Amino acid sequence: MTHPLLEKHRATLDGALHTIATRSYWSAYNEMPSPKVYGENAPADGKKAFEAHLGKRFELDQPGVRGWYEGEHSPYGVDLNVHYPICDHEALIAAGQKAMEGWQQAGVAGRTGVCLEILARLNAQSFEIAHAVMMTTGQGWMMAFQAGGPHAQDRGLESVAYAWREQSFVPGEALWEKPQGKNPPLVMKKHFEVVGQGVGVVIGCGTFPTWNTYPGLFAALATGNAVVIKPNNSAVLPAAITVRTIRAVLAENGVDPNLVSLCVPGDRAATQKLVTHPAVRMIDYTGGNTFGQWLIDNCRQARVYAELAGVNNIVIDSTDAYKAMLRNLAFTLSLYSGQMCTTSQAIFVPAAGIDTDEGHKSFDEVCTDLGQALTSFLAKPEVAHAVLGAVQSPDTLKRIAMADSGTLGHVVRSSTQLENPDFPKAIVRTPVLLACDASDEHSYMEERFGPISFVVKTADTASAITLSERLVATHGALTVGVYSTRQNVIDAMTRATLRAKVALSINLTGGVFVNQSAAFSDYHATGGNPAANACYSDAAFVANRFVVVQRRYHV
Amino acid sequence: MTHPLLEKHRATLDGALHTIATRSYWSAYNEMPSPKVYGENAPADGKKAFEAHLGKRFELDQPGVRGWYEGEHSPYGVDLNVHYPICDHEALIAAGQKAMEGWQQAGVAGRTGVCLEILARLNAQSFEIAHAVMMTTGQGWMMAFQAGGPHAQDRGLESVAYAWREQSFVPGEALWEKPQGKNPPLVMKKHFEVVGQGVGVVIGCGTFPTWNTYPGLFAALATGNAVVIKPNNSAVLPAAITVRTIRAVLAENGVDPNLVSLCVPGDRAATQKLVTHPAVRMIDYTGGNTFGQWLIDNCRQARVYAELAGVNNIVIDSTDAYKAMLRNLAFTLSLYSGQMCTTSQAIFVPAAGIDTDEGHKSFDEVCTDLGQALTSFLAKPEVAHAVLGAVQSPDTLKRIAMADSGTLGHVVRSSTQLENPDFPKAIVRTPVLLACDASDEHSYMEERFGPISFVVKTADTASAITLSERLVATHGALTVGVYSTRQNVIDAMTRATLRAKVALSINLTGGVFVNQSAAFSDYHATGGNPAANACYSDAAFVANRFVVVQRRYHV
Repeated sequence: MTHPLLEKHRATLDGALHTIATRSYWSAYNEMPSPKVYGENAPADGKKAFEAHLGKRFELDQPGVRGWYEGEHSPYGVDLNVHYPICDHEALIAAGQKAMEGWQQAGVAGRTGVCLEILARLNAQSFEIAHAVMMTTGQGWMMAFQAGGPHAQDRGLESVAYAWREQSFVPGEALWEKPQGKNPPLVMKKHFEVVGQGVGVVIGCGTFPTWNTYPGLFAALATGNAVVIKPNNSAVLPAAITVRTIRAVLAENGVDPNLVSLCVPGDRAATQKLVTHPAVRMIDYTGGNTFGQWLIDNCRQARVYAELAGVNNIVIDSTDAYKAMLRNLAFTLSLYSGQMCTTSQAIFVPAAGIDTDEGHKSFDEVCTDLGQALTSFLAKPEVAHAVLGAVQSPDTLKRIAMADSGTLGHVVRSSTQLENPDFPKAIVRTPVLLACDASDEHSYMEERFGPISFVVKTADTASAITLSERLVATHGALTVGVYSTRQNVIDAMTRATLRAKVALSINLTGGVFVNQSAAFSDYHATGGNPAANACYSDAAFVANRFVVVQRRYHV
Repeated sequence: MTHPLLEKHRATLDGALHTIATRSYWSAYNEMPSPKVYGENAPADGKKAFEAHLGKRFELDQPGVRGWYEGEHSPYGVDLNVHYPICDHEALIAAGQKAMEGWQQAGVAGRTGVCLEILARLNAQSFEIAHAVMMTTGQGWMMAFQAGGPHAQDRGLESVAYAWREQSFVPGEALWEKPQGKNPPLVMKKHFEVVGQGVGVVIGCGTFPTWNTYPGLFAALATGNAVVIKPNNSAVLPAAITVRTIRAVLAENGVDPNLVSLCVPGDRAATQKLVTHPAVRMIDYTGGNTFGQWLIDNCRQARVYAELAGVNNIVIDSTDAYKAMLRNLAFTLSLYSGQMCTTSQAIFVPAAGIDTDEGHKSFDEVCTDLGQALTSFLAKPEVAHAVLGAVQSPDTLKRIAMADSGTLGHVVRSSTQLENPDFPKAIVRTPVLLACDASDEHSYMEERFGPISFVVKTADTASAITLSERLVATHGALTVGVYSTRQNVIDAMTRATLRAKVALSINLTGGVFVNQSAAFSDYHATGGNPAANACYSDAAFVANRFVVVQRRYHV
């Protein structure tokens, strides 16, 4: 079972397969946006390639074009003005279904090889995609390059590796020989074919248009399905570039490019028709609970892999590195202005304060010191802009204003507005930090997406742990953290997170942050609490996307 | 990662793991009800053990007992009069949840070892369970022993093997070391725990109370979940014996026996409360579409693994072994009076007839010859009773009467009533065979569970294949067959079944039958057509039943 493209990229696949088994460190695609890695001209060429899209029609040669969409808005205030084809969803689905038969015949090796080639080609476009991600999402440059490029590609590769592991486990054929005592055995030849479930729809989000799209895209594609990508209306370009590259690689390899298409629906009704279409058998979604729940309730013909809202939280009991803890938290709360599904929102601190290497700190001191740590960390404008990026959505601006008004809790640190000298129209806000009591559940117990966090006063550490567990179990979370110098606290928190089914980061004071999740090693979401019903990545993320169809006969 | 019971049964697990990878022939549990295999006294002891249950309370020491149930009715007309505890579902769920923590701490090796021990103990009880299955379902003795005992145990083991493969792939811990150029690497220790999703409910059917229960039971159990078994009201005893054995093995190994319980609900409302309970995270169901669809629509808190109704069908184009084909079909239609989810219901034959090794046979001749083959096959009473068994449900009797009346099609062969000398009150009916036109879709295009089959006249072979594909895609099927001497017909049928996602048996004329599915080799259902959304067994059957919860810290 092989294919020239599989052999070409065999080392990459083997690296991924090895690492999903060991969960140690590995990356297929270099995260440094360096000319030494990507080539002398890569940065300039990538920028040029990005700029070449602006103000033009983005041709994709898809069927069913009905008009053109041009509604993207850059958080950096840059005019994008790219026009994308609006295609009839029925035409895209029909064309995808038609393309599936050839894709299935390519076999597991062929499909995997083509997926690996696509990833390599996307990797070579990392600078172009990074600019597209940065300008559509408001991410800072480094994050846009890393999360939008190589880290997203790593997550895509992770899906391909899981898909390979499961599909390659199914033997192509078997000789079945059942003994019959003294009589000759019953002998049958059996054939087993891996067949994709149907058309997949991947619904992108406005903040991570590749990182949250590639896992579902490659999981569906590698397992034999057609894929329609429905990007967020404000972050189309990264998806469009991705789709164009995929279609080119498919065509080069004799596969009907309509296997993968970009669907920019004309309106909400068209989106609803797309996702409820009987041929659509899987939907990957990242975004808010309202539409997510609508998908789960209405798309009964499909399996929905959903990453929804959650309330990530941290329990602070004690620390032997107070300053480093505050610095670590300040970075976490600032990174991309808190517009990550993994950003901590609720920080539980006992009313009596905490023991630290700098002596006991009262609850109020912890609040003040964390607020001050944010202000210090963001004091240099070049650091602030690189880390904060820009605010992606007007809704987030509204939430910041509401938090700043003090209606949700005592304002420890107000959000401030910064001017970005490189992008004068960019909308930049520093984090707002609030303090409230554990009983103010209406304030902190729902996701307030953006740079809004609460220091929540709890009776003691034990009640903080109990509260954290309940919060995760009822509202969901992707990340939970704990700071403690006491093993029994860490053990209690470990047990709580096992029950609530959420990943735990313990005493992060260095260069790793609770909101970071490394492909191949960190499971992103567990699929076991309300924040997500699936995980990047595990066997469950791929195993239901295909079936095995057998045939048998006597020989 | 090991455990004494895992080591004890290592060869069994290895055999299963090897065979799910090769899909060749293997069985862990001997299918011959022979004293040489099971011990000199096993047949007598098993019968005695079965009889010891009759007319008594079946004590299980479960919490929340509210009353006793005694509604079983034997298709053989034997008085069973066993009394089962009716337990409050809330008490069973709460006790199951409580037991889960210890079960999780047993780890993958411990859980797998205990599951293997349970299967070995159930295997030793095969005679006892066979009598219980026979008397509650109406199966013939040989089928009750094989399908109810070793074959069901094989299917349970298959689930354990898949669960082991997926869970053991998750490393317990990892050292993550990320290079930082000239700086020291970032180093983290990570721990990964496999955690069950929650309580599983397994809803048994009246015809195969172990074969269709063990896959979900062992898949849920091996992956760390508590399990509540809700048997069919008319086939409780096989489930009750199973639950008692499991609870004994759990207790012997220091696990709270309430991890697995038997729930005989007092009424329909209690069943609905059980399956919609928020703690219930997975439901395995085999049975009719009405309740199955109700479960899918209403148990939104759980993943539902459903095997529903279908219309299994066969396309006959031509054959070089006419008599052997008819004999093979006669056995298939007669086995357990067609009360199998895999029994063929629609047999498509071209209007112009078929070419055979005995010359051309007209459509009418094929009908007549198949009817005659049934009559000949069932001519000897001892063969007839051994193969037919008894009719399990009054509904099936009604369906037979309706088919016999001729309202569904021309009666080629009427059902006849047989007297079973060993069981004078047994309800025994031979198969009814009808003929109809392809356009009579209302007759043959819905499941008519029981010994009722249609020879359906199609325009030609091509339209028969098209019809088969549409039938599977719209109404579902677990099995499809084709008889043809022409490769292009077999190829067309192969393509049709790949599209409709159903298993195909080609030219079965010997000792294998389309309605048989061998554990470890044959996938039972694909999960890709309306007859079932899951498969015995594949990775998808186990992968969603657990999550991985990680924790990480710097070292």
